[in-house]
Amino acid sequence: MAKLLLQYKENDAIDAFALLKKAEVRQTKTGKDFLALTFADRSGDISGNFWDASQADIDRFQPGQIVKVEGTRGSFKGTPQVQISKLRLTEAGEPTSAADFIKSAPVKKDDLEAELTDTLFKITQPTWNRLVRHLFKQYKEQFLEFPAAKVNHHAFARGLAFHSLSIARLAEAVSGLYPQLNRDLLLAGALLHDLGKVIELSGPVATEYTTAGKLIGHITLVDEQLVLAVHDLGMDLNQEDVLLLRHVVLAHHGLQEYGSPIRPQVMEAEILHQLDEMDASMQMMTGAMEQTAPGEWSKRVFALDNRSFYRPEDGQQVADSNESAPAEQPVDPSSLF
Amino acid sequence: MAKLLLQYKENDAIDAFALLKKAEVRQTKTGKDFLALTFADRSGDISGNFWDASQADIDRFQPGQIVKVEGTRGSFKGTPQVQISKLRLTEAGEPTSAADFIKSAPVKKDDLEAELTDTLFKITQPTWNRLVRHLFKQYKEQFLEFPAAKVNHHAFARGLAFHSLSIARLAEAVSGLYPQLNRDLLLAGALLHDLGKVIELSGPVATEYTTAGKLIGHITLVDEQLVLAVHDLGMDLNQEDVLLLRHVVLAHHGLQEYGSPIRPQVMEAEILHQLDEMDASMQMMTGAMEQTAPGEWSKRVFALDNRSFYRPEDGQQVADSNESAPAEQPVDPSSLF
Amino acid sequence: MAKLLLQYKENDAIDAFALLKKAEVRQTKTGKDFLALTFADRSGDISGNFWDASQADIDRFQPGQIVKVEGTRGSFKGTPQVQISKLRLTEAGEPTSAADFIKSAPVKKDDLEAELTDTLFKITQPTWNRLVRHLFKQYKEQFLEFPAAKVNHHAFARGLAFHSLSIARLAEAVSGLYPQLNRDLLLAGALLHDLGKVIELSGPVATEYTTAGKLIGHITLVDEQLVLAVHDLGMDLNQEDVLLLRHVVLAHHGLQEYGSPIRPQVMEAEILHQLDEMDASMQMMTGAMEQTAPGEWSKRVFALDNRSFYRPEDGQQVADSNESAPAEQPVDPSSLF
Amino acid sequence: MAKLLLQYKENDAIDAFALLKKAEVRQTKTGKDFLALTFADRSGDISGNFWDASQADIDRFQPGQIVKVEGTRGSFKGTPQVQISKLRLTEAGEPTSAADFIKSAPVKKDDLEAELTDTLFKITQPTWNRLVRHLFKQYKEQFLEFPAAKVNHHAFARGLAFHSLSIARLAEAVSGLYPQLNRDLLLAGALLHDLGKVIELSGPVATEYTTAGKLIGHITLVDEQLVLAVHDLGMDLNQEDVLLLRHVVLAHHGLQEYGSPIRPQVMEAEILHQLDEMDASMQMMTGAMEQTAPGEWSKRVFALDNRSFYRPEDGQQVADSNESAPAEQPVDPSSLF
Amino acid sequence: MAKLLLQYKENDAIDAFALLKKAEVRQTKTGKDFLALTFADRSGDISGNFWDASQADIDRFQPGQIVKVEGTRGSFKGTPQVQISKLRLTEAGEPTSAADFIKSAPVKKDDLEAELTDTLFKITQPTWNRLVRHLFKQYKEQFLEFPAAKVNHHAFARGLAFHSLSIARLAEAVSGLYPQLNRDLLLAGALLHDLGKVIELSGPVATEYTTAGKLIGHITLVDEQLVLAVHDLGMDLNQEDVLLLRHVVLAHHGLQEYGSPIRPQVMEAEILHQLDEMDASMQMMTGAMEQTAPGEWSKRVFALDNRSFYRPEDGQQVADSNESAPAEQPVDPSSLF
Amino acid sequence: MAKLLLQYKENDAIDAFALLKKAEVRQTKTGKDFLALTFADRSGDISGNFWDASQADIDRFQPGQIVKVEGTRGSFKGTPQVQISKLRLTEAGEPTSAADFIKSAPVKKDDLEAELTDTLFKITQPTWNRLVRHLFKQYKEQFLEFPAAKVNHHAFARGLAFHSLSIARLAEAVSGLYPQLNRDLLLAGALLHDLGKVIELSGPVATEYTTAGKLIGHITLVDEQLVLAVHDLGMDLNQEDVLLLRHVVLAHHGLQEYGSPIRPQVMEAEILHQLDEMDASMQMMTGAMEQTAPGEWSKRVFALDNRSFYRPEDGQQVADSNESAPAEQPVDPSSLF
Repeated sequence: MAKLLLQYKENDAIDAFALLKKAEVRQTKTGKDFLALTFADRSGDISGNFWDASQADIDRFQPGQIVKVEGTRGSFKGTPQVQISKLRLTEAGEPTSAADFIKSAPVKKDDLEAELTDTLFKITQPTWNRLVRHLFKQYKEQFLEFPAAKVNHHAFARGLAFHSLSIARLAEAVSGLYPQLNRDLLLAGALLHDLGKVIELSGPVATEYTTAGKLIGHITLVDEQLVLAVHDLGMDLNQEDVLLLRHVVLAHHGLQEYGSPIRPQVMEAEILHQLDEMDASMQMMTGAMEQTAPGEWSKRVFALDNRSFYRPEDGQQVADSNESAPAEQPVDPSSLF
Repeated sequence: MAKLLLQYKENDAIDAFALLKKAEVRQTKTGKDFLALTFADRSGDISGNFWDASQADIDRFQPGQIVKVEGTRGSFKGTPQVQISKLRLTEAGEPTSAADFIKSAPVKKDDLEAELTDTLFKITQPTWNRLVRHLFKQYKEQFLEFPAAKVNHHAFARGLAFHSLSIARLAEAVSGLYPQLNRDLLLAGALLHDLGKVIELSGPVATEYTTAGKLIGHITLVDEQLVLAVHDLGMDLNQEDVLLLRHVVLAHHGLQEYGSPIRPQVMEAEILHQLDEMDASMQMMTGAMEQTAPGEWSKRVFALDNRSFYRPEDGQQVADSNESAPAEQPVDPSSLF
Repeated sequence: MAKLLLQYKENDAIDAFALLKKAEVRQTKTGKDFLALTFADRSGDISGNFWDASQADIDRFQPGQIVKVEGTRGSFKGTPQVQISKLRLTEAGEPTSAADFIKSAPVKKDDLEAELTDTLFKITQPTWNRLVRHLFKQYKEQFLEFPAAKVNHHAFARGLAFHSLSIARLAEAVSGLYPQLNRDLLLAGALLHDLGKVIELSGPVATEYTTAGKLIGHITLVDEQLVLAVHDLGMDLNQEDVLLLRHVVLAHHGLQEYGSPIRPQVMEAEILHQLDEMDASMQMMTGAMEQTAPGEWSKRVFALDNRSFYRPEDGQQVADSNESAPAEQPVDPSSLF
Repeated sequence: MAKLLLQYKENDAIDAFALLKKAEVRQTKTGKDFLALTFADRSGDISGNFWDASQADIDRFQPGQIVKVEGTRGSFKGTPQVQISKLRLTEAGEPTSAADFIKSAPVKKDDLEAELTDTLFKITQPTWNRLVRHLFKQYKEQFLEFPAAKVNHHAFARGLAFHSLSIARLAEAVSGLYPQLNRDLLLAGALLHDLGKVIELSGPVATEYTTAGKLIGHITLVDEQLVLAVHDLGMDLNQEDVLLLRHVVLAHHGLQEYGSPIRPQVMEAEILHQLDEMDASMQMMTGAMEQTAPGEWSKRVFALDNRSFYRPEDGQQVADSNESAPAEQPVDPSSLF
Repeated sequence: MAKLLLQYKENDAIDAFALLKKAEVRQTKTGKDFLALTFADRSGDISGNFWDASQADIDRFQPGQIVKVEGTRGSFKGTPQVQISKLRLTEAGEPTSAADFIKSAPVKKDDLEAELTDTLFKITQPTWNRLVRHLFKQYKEQFLEFPAAKVNHHAFARGLAFHSLSIARLAEAVSGLYPQLNRDLLLAGALLHDLGKVIELSGPVATEYTTAGKLIGHITLVDEQLVLAVHDLGMDLNQEDVLLLRHVVLAHHGLQEYGSPIRPQVMEAEILHQLDEMDASMQMMTGAMEQTAPGEWSKRVFALDNRSFYRPEDGQQVADSNESAPAEQPVDPSSLF
Repeated sequence: MAKLLLQYKENDAIDAFALLKKAEVRQTKTGKDFLALTFADRSGDISGNFWDASQADIDRFQPGQIVKVEGTRGSFKGTPQVQISKLRLTEAGEPTSAADFIKSAPVKKDDLEAELTDTLFKITQPTWNRLVRHLFKQYKEQFLEFPAAKVNHHAFARGLAFHSLSIARLAEAVSGLYPQLNRDLLLAGALLHDLGKVIELSGPVATEYTTAGKLIGHITLVDEQLVLAVHDLGMDLNQEDVLLLRHVVLAHHGLQEYGSPIRPQVMEAEILHQLDEMDASMQMMTGAMEQTAPGEWSKRVFALDNRSFYRPEDGQQVADSNESAPAEQPVDPSSLF
């Protein structure tokens, strides 16, 4: 029972607990009801059909329930599926919390929280520090739990914090290399840029867009929160530092066709946008590589212009190259060329 | 002295009061200072060079001053210009108010104000009525004075109100023909959609973008004011009617590449966008036609994809066709085909 | 038997007359013939498979036949379908006219004809009046019966007249608000702009493109008819009013990439294009809203850039807002702000 | 006096007859009138200013006049110009015909006419032969005199015939290599595709767009003529061969954004479009090469996406390579690789 | 047994040898294994399912095997398929060579080789002649065997040579009509432009992209081979004729977005690109026409912007029109118009 | 004499040594020769006209000469210019080296060379190390002297090394944050990606494109050098590590429309492209900010989509924010929110 859903190989016998993510009643061509189910745990999703479903089955197996499923790992048109032999709800003493069955960032909540605290300390410009702290007073919990998206990059629990803090780390490295950049503005922008997602999305489980999310959008929603924070803290909407922070957040999609109402027009806005793209593409490419064997090409990644990526043969090559040159072999620079 | 600047013909003697819109010190190729001036009155702009400018002239003739200019209507590379023979500031008893020399909408402020009041009455949905009234309490004066743009359509004093009320009139006509449209939402959207321009632009004279205008943009600025209004009036940001009004205003540019952070997703948002485009194009085409003789083609209109428009020969045709068919000639419908 | 096809709910017993729109012979995986059928009536389409079809069945159930179908309203992959238990052709005394089973505009032919007559009366410019009447002498019947498209907006019987007259109504409203527009030219353009569809399409039932429709296109086809009309009436192709009417019709798609050989270059051509788009989008959005419950989002509408539209919760809101403010509560204008 | 305008080198004394193409009255900065003139002959255009122009000069030197000009070949901002020392109208015994001073195709009218006749003979399909002959009965003279454009490729007298017959030659070569192509349809399309330009443009001298040209466009204008020809010859607009010829002509711009109301949908339509592009680009590249020295890069060619083209160093290379391999050196094929 | 796979009609009994191109193990909904097979011969591909496959069947029927298949020509969702009744590997005395079962160009290898030799003779410029011969010494065999693509145009054995030589023939015809073109450069470019495909693709059977093909691309791969050839032959990379040949090959896709690192900047580069497009589109349109009955529309051709093409009714029309006008009917030119 | 050319203010007397970058002979409207000169030193360029130039002046003042210029800092149409009072060539004892008068990277050649050596040490993967060292043996001097472009970003002496090493520093920081990236491949790519510019461009002074640069382009030129290096070092072109390095370099423009023949298809290729864009945009934005006063907007930057950038008011803000929070004020993390 220790195995996760996506760890079973073709033809393995399956015996697992899982979260029901979808449960749709359908009819076979000859008109009989069956349930088209999607099972999920921390490793991902797998589908399976429950044939000859009675009305009691239909009532019982609702999305959000935790179930015990037995059967075989088969496949249909190249996609893995469960051929279900037995299915029941969990009982006393068995897992019941949906939260244990959703995919999450590879970092614990406590570690994310500690890094958030560290990052807040680094923002010493007083206006930005106060605004960011004011907003995290209200939204820290959601920030640490929400995904960064419904699909695409960082679409898993804690993805929002994982993504935002990763950008903050990049921001610190880059502002070290280009001292003309305002590090505080980049850090504040990194933490806030996607915070509107805690209003745009419904939460970490069974994530959907809210009505406000669809009608207003997360970029305007975080600006709304910034406007109210400025008002609450008695600041002036025309202060330059307030305008700059709003600008950096509003412009972070880079292009208007991607939903920013304005284009980046200060250096930090342009760079925050670039770092956002870099972290998103790293996350998507890494995800694709994890599902690809060395020497093979990945599935196409829709959000990266539908490109397929190659995973080089020699795994060792990668590991080795990230070590520095061994110290024991001194090299005479003059011999280099 | 009754003639306006653009009413002089080539070679006419000019003797006029005018507002100085630009006054730049330049050097001739041989290094002498002169002033490159732009004169303006209600009819538009005309340029002229003031040769051999002394330092006193340079200090005296600043943008914003009202001057008396004498000379000849010449031209340079096809563009009209003043060959200045005499130039002085106005004196006691002569015009001094810049406001008398700027181009304005062809409707008086009082009439616009009356139409605004009428339109507000028609918005009976309570949330929208309260929000719109709250915002016009603060911004009515600017709404009635500001242009709708720095260049392009309705770039003249009172252009904002003229344009917004014109859309409101269209909205009323269209919602009469399609009863499935919510007239109140269209009217509230028509009045508010460009109200952010009172923050984005500097005012009706020598209009420039403000820093907030460039860094935030008028679409987000009016949303900011709506958010604060909702807060001031104790409403809930999640009320559907609040979300709908914000949506309609945010989406009015229609496409994200034109600066709307979201696309229209309710019927009224789509239609408001279309009416905005219709009134803007009517204004630009009408402006182009006014400067074009019958049977001729206009200059290219940049904001209409650089098209040139044809003004039909027969002026009378137009006037006539807008009368209904004369009543005295009854026609037998059966003979029509 | 009064129920229409799309009025049955899941699991209802079906007993209905219907038009066969499609009837394709297919094989099951094991090689047996079945008929994949599409049934239609005024409410729309629904599919169903007729299993174990004999050669006699295949010969009997041809597209265009009227049938009596019995069975159950099931669904397959989320799409409604008929599980057929019994199927036969209609007999003496039962419906036989395909025309009774097709979707139509929500206005009767007589009313459309009356409105067409009224609109023709309003066109008083003699050249345009004669040309439009000449063309409607030939094509009035088709104009009143044809759809405006094979798919997309107004793809139902009488859709062509319904759409064209709706634009004429908009044209009249808009030319009232902008007197610089030539109302007669707009009205003539509204009536003729899509008339080429009576040659481009095969008719109101089982609508297909004709060879001429695909090789020439409806915009050039109506121009062809206008050229012949000018010739028949002894007019001159170089008369300005002839050129203007042809231009307005040729340019009505607005952009060359949408099939107009030229872009709008007179005011009325630009506005006719905008009104055409407005009526088409109103029709598509209204259709989407009718299939969407309050508080829900519609299916994506392909021809509106694949957008999904929101239907607001409060149905009453809509209805109410289209009434004027009640007269019994006089408001003091000075108290408005 | 034998030299043409563009054959003079910098600082040469000029003494030449020329056509006045433009003659604009302008003022110097200090307000004196001068004439900005453009002189033309078969070699091209050159500008020059006639200072201190009297009213008599202004009246005398009108566009279209033939003049005798003396002066020096100077330059202004890198562009050649005439520094005029003497200017007068031509007198008795001197050239007077504007036609002698315009740029023309490098082929005589008689030769073009002979080739047109030959090409007509080759079209043996009766419908197309009759239609093409019917149209050339009306428009042969203009076809042999008109340019193919106002600017861009083949913008010179007889350019229309030169371009159309060049495409016909390509069509013959290509249909020889691909026998699946209908040669007659390609030839008929080659001759007719741009014939609408005889209505769209004003003529070979001082070429302008006509009102019909701008409001209708040459593609629809030739279709108009085809429709009337079909009518005059008593053919049926629904005959397939009529539809095919109209289609090939309507679709010859290849893409709707370039003004074709439909895209090519028969093989010959696609190929005619490609041959049209090939001949146009050959003409523009050849023109650019003629003004470029070996080993140099041409000016940018706007209509070829603003590219600059390289003219290889070794002129001889080109000439040589177009001869076949000399026969006197037999080569053993087996030694080739 | 003489019939090819695509020559069987619906419901025909099939008895044929075929190459297995795909053989995938799948499960039915109830979990039983079957083999989803694709059979191929010179006429093309057809699919079929082999039900109830045992493990021995799965091991036996691998892609690349030659099999004997019996059954019936059925169809599934409009696509032809084999309903398999009997399947076995071929035995002694039956066909065994995969090469006999793949689609090929309609020209024999020997004829292609002879035409290649002829074309090489025509390239008399010494640098280009030596480079082209040097490369064909290494790659002639592959050139004569490889397809020109994995899918799209010329995706069949010997397609590379068939396509390249077809372009060479066009190049000769076009350089005859435009003597300003360097025929040798066009011919060398025609032969080399796609030669990188012999490295980019895996071979004529079961064609796939190689790793080098995907990471480097055929345009850079042929340039690599040219660079090494220049090096091997002791030429200078800066010779103009070397640069010109590399340029013509590098630029042959015409636009950078289609994979050329530079745009065509000499005349021959532009024309080679156009001839490449012409031959590719001719091949795709001809392929579409072959599968379309007279008077019908083809399937949509993805690589031609998803257009559908019309095949005219009158087959005879085509054949006839490619004959010259019969000599026996002398025509008086003067009577032509 | 210590002042640099761009340090003079309007109306200052100028007395400076400068490099002549351009010297064109032009004529005044009245036909007299003058020299239109561009002077340059390390601070940038300034223009000025030398009136009444004799033939001796024209012969003497050639581009590339070092001159002593006296006069006044004036301006013409808003652009600074020198009003020249005196001009002569430099004499014995005065500067004579053009290299002292060109704009350069803000880092010395020795420092760049040292950093290059350090970076080479870090590449420990043997294939890449050998290839990179082999190429730098040939091109190190040019790498350290050349600009990275003719215009746009890093268009100054040593710009190529400055830009490449800046990317290498970013690569090191980013591969530290994402250990899944192969640092060696990124570093090798950073050093080589633009090395083709030493062939594409003519050198650090009066930089022009070479013929090879225009016909082949720097991306293919560096690939050419890599291919030859692989050949010289006896490696195999099909080794995966060779393919990877070529791919990373070929793909570094990211999109084919920007000149990469292939898109990035390994993680390091995508990231190298992003880092290249980041450093280029940082350089352009920093350049724009240096010419902009606090609180002002920069000129539009063409290569950044013609955007104007804002330089915040408070210079101190920037400087301050890049310090860490002062250590003496310990903060209780629990009080942060």
